Amino acid sequence: MGQFPTNLGEAIEWLASFGGEPDAGVTRTLYTQTWKEAQQALKGWMEETGLLTNYDSIGNLFGRLPSPYSNAQTILIGSHVDTVKSGGKYDGAYGIIAGILALDFLKKQYGQPKINLEVVSFCEEEGSRFPLACWGSGMMTGVYSLRDISTIKDSDGISFETAMMAAGFGISELRVRNDIQTFIELHIEQGPTLEKVEKSIGIVKAIVGQKRFRITVIGESNHVGTTSMKWRRDALHGAINMIHGLYESVKEYDEDLVTSVGQLFVEPNVPNVIPNQVQFTVDARYPNESVLRSFCQEFTVMFETYAKKHDLDIKVEMWHEVQPAQMDRKLNEIIQSICTHSNIPSHWMNSGAGHDAQLFARICPTTILFVPSKGGISHSPLEYTSTQDLEKGMEVLIQLLHQLAYNR
Amino acid sequence: MGQFPTNLGEAIEWLASFGGEPDAGVTRTLYTQTWKEAQQALKGWMEETGLLTNYDSIGNLFGRLPSPYSNAQTILIGSHVDTVKSGGKYDGAYGIIAGILALDFLKKQYGQPKINLEVVSFCEEEGSRFPLACWGSGMMTGVYSLRDISTIKDSDGISFETAMMAAGFGISELRVRNDIQTFIELHIEQGPTLEKVEKSIGIVKAIVGQKRFRITVIGESNHVGTTSMKWRRDALHGAINMIHGLYESVKEYDEDLVTSVGQLFVEPNVPNVIPNQVQFTVDARYPNESVLRSFCQEFTVMFETYAKKHDLDIKVEMWHEVQPAQMDRKLNEIIQSICTHSNIPSHWMNSGAGHDAQLFARICPTTILFVPSKGGISHSPLEYTSTQDLEKGMEVLIQLLHQLAYNR
Repeated sequence: MGQFPTNLGEAIEWLASFGGEPDAGVTRTLYTQTWKEAQQALKGWMEETGLLTNYDSIGNLFGRLPSPYSNAQTILIGSHVDTVKSGGKYDGAYGIIAGILALDFLKKQYGQPKINLEVVSFCEEEGSRFPLACWGSGMMTGVYSLRDISTIKDSDGISFETAMMAAGFGISELRVRNDIQTFIELHIEQGPTLEKVEKSIGIVKAIVGQKRFRITVIGESNHVGTTSMKWRRDALHGAINMIHGLYESVKEYDEDLVTSVGQLFVEPNVPNVIPNQVQFTVDARYPNESVLRSFCQEFTVMFETYAKKHDLDIKVEMWHEVQPAQMDRKLNEIIQSICTHSNIPSHWMNSGAGHDAQLFARICPTTILFVPSKGGISHSPLEYTSTQDLEKGMEVLIQLLHQLAYNR
Repeated sequence: MGQFPTNLGEAIEWLASFGGEPDAGVTRTLYTQTWKEAQQALKGWMEETGLLTNYDSIGNLFGRLPSPYSNAQTILIGSHVDTVKSGGKYDGAYGIIAGILALDFLKKQYGQPKINLEVVSFCEEEGSRFPLACWGSGMMTGVYSLRDISTIKDSDGISFETAMMAAGFGISELRVRNDIQTFIELHIEQGPTLEKVEKSIGIVKAIVGQKRFRITVIGESNHVGTTSMKWRRDALHGAINMIHGLYESVKEYDEDLVTSVGQLFVEPNVPNVIPNQVQFTVDARYPNESVLRSFCQEFTVMFETYAKKHDLDIKVEMWHEVQPAQMDRKLNEIIQSICTHSNIPSHWMNSGAGHDAQLFARICPTTILFVPSKGGISHSPLEYTSTQDLEKGMEVLIQLLHQLAYNR
């Protein structure tokens, strides 16, 4: 290939070369040198295809295929350029690449659109370098401001602001744009659903809400051999019964409700000592906020009732919360009809992971389309989607943009 | 007090001064300088009270009140001089001190016994410095030999043999004594039973058998949000259900059966990742070996069946096993009758912790008597038994030895 890629397969490898190491995946965290090189390379490629480029003040990169109408609004298409540490080639990257190639195709086939088409390469979504996720889309949609990063540092102690300034950004506050009419994101699924149900396109109904809790159960340490079962205040026995109850209660809900205990610490964690403290996390997700809230209230009451009955102390803290985001029904119906007419097998589903699209759902009609992830694996060098599947996603995106920006 | 103590309360404080630190409890691990000073001090006290002393080749200390009959057998009374790190003043120490004071009293009151009375200060029982417990009683009863310590080192890398030689012991193999007719140990309970039932003396029916297992459950890590509950191979969810089943199954047994999960490790132990591995311990104890074995077989089958059904891999390893030891029924009935006649409230119970007595139960009629532990606390600077309770235990011991060694 020349300086810039000419098709999807080439483009994935080309973008992965910025921060990619053999067997170590791609590491391209916010405002680092590889991150800057990737954004600059994307800017060059956008310009090569004839898009009008610009950065905003925090480093989001835009490539615009303008409408001839001066009062035209904008359909924004894109995803994030940053990665987790040792991530895959597709997460984020696919949505930017497919956007650039789609606009290039549409311009060559149909010329100027009636509505501005603009591809965005968001500076940050993963929260991998600094403890703040969806920075790019969060600033664009007015959810974040520069105040939100004033005290944040990376693991080397470098402040967010210092890193941003060093990359050449951050002089001024972002002006929230009022021309965005629609936001569309194309992304790998990062889960096994499409592969399991053997479909090519996931039409996302909602990005689920999340609530994460830290539960601390406190009992009393004693000698395992000399303390009768009936006199124990065993924090782990208590936690086991609570978590067992949690997993039983989820069965009363539909399968969109997922819950997990991913982290659990035992004190003193010695085979022959009755545990005096257990701390565990509960992660609960569902596309409807009121149902999710009532599920969480139910298990909290159940935990507290159990603790009281068994003379254990308990502390329940919610430390992370994300509201569910509903994707636009009309956009999804257009996507469904495109899939049907093009004979591309599709599947309506929720997204259990967070995405830039959930920030835009607050301000404009938004949707996200998924393509399959092999084995459901993501955030790993093993992340993989076949070029055939990537192309089907881009085909649907092109038809969708054609309907939205040329036919109306 | 003078050089040596004259009563129980004094003697507890005196022996605790070897290795005791304010607020840090007593640390007197095998073959250390404080250990050696404690044994030497006990030897001096034994001699002061007129006992004939000697060490065996591994450092067990004996003080003998001999019978005039040359073919007389020996009743051995005692416990261990070593402690855990930052242990209490009573664990082990009480049994030695009460033995010396009992023999002193009996000699002064009744003169020479018909059967030799001998108090022993075992060199080691706790397994705190080296990973080998009941070294003193194990060598005396032929359960251990010098081969068992050939590769053992302490946490500083000092070999067992080097430490033993440096303390002045270990030249020759121990000759197993064939004159021991009876073994009697007086010990603090180290559990809350006597305090809960408000009795002064615990008459021990058996020292329970123990089996300890390490269970490894292996599933698959996945993203919490993007993996439907039905497609998960969640190692922690599996382990929770297994342990819940374990605690349910114990309800079908009598209350002498105790089981505990004291240690549990989760991998990768991250709130938003489904755990791919959980390792936990199961400790099960019961006074009857065949019942204990069948309980362990049941939960092993239950775990394996559950794992198979839920597509999890499982490994069950038994890494520690102690056979139950039955205490002598006739000795216990004499103790019961002494308690009844002296109006001392007693309680028949099992010992859930291991003791030197369980080694002797293999070779001669043996029993162990408990006195209450405040709050059931042991292996801690907070370990406490009132002098009144200590004296009641010694009173029963004196009467028992009088019946066994003078009245027959």
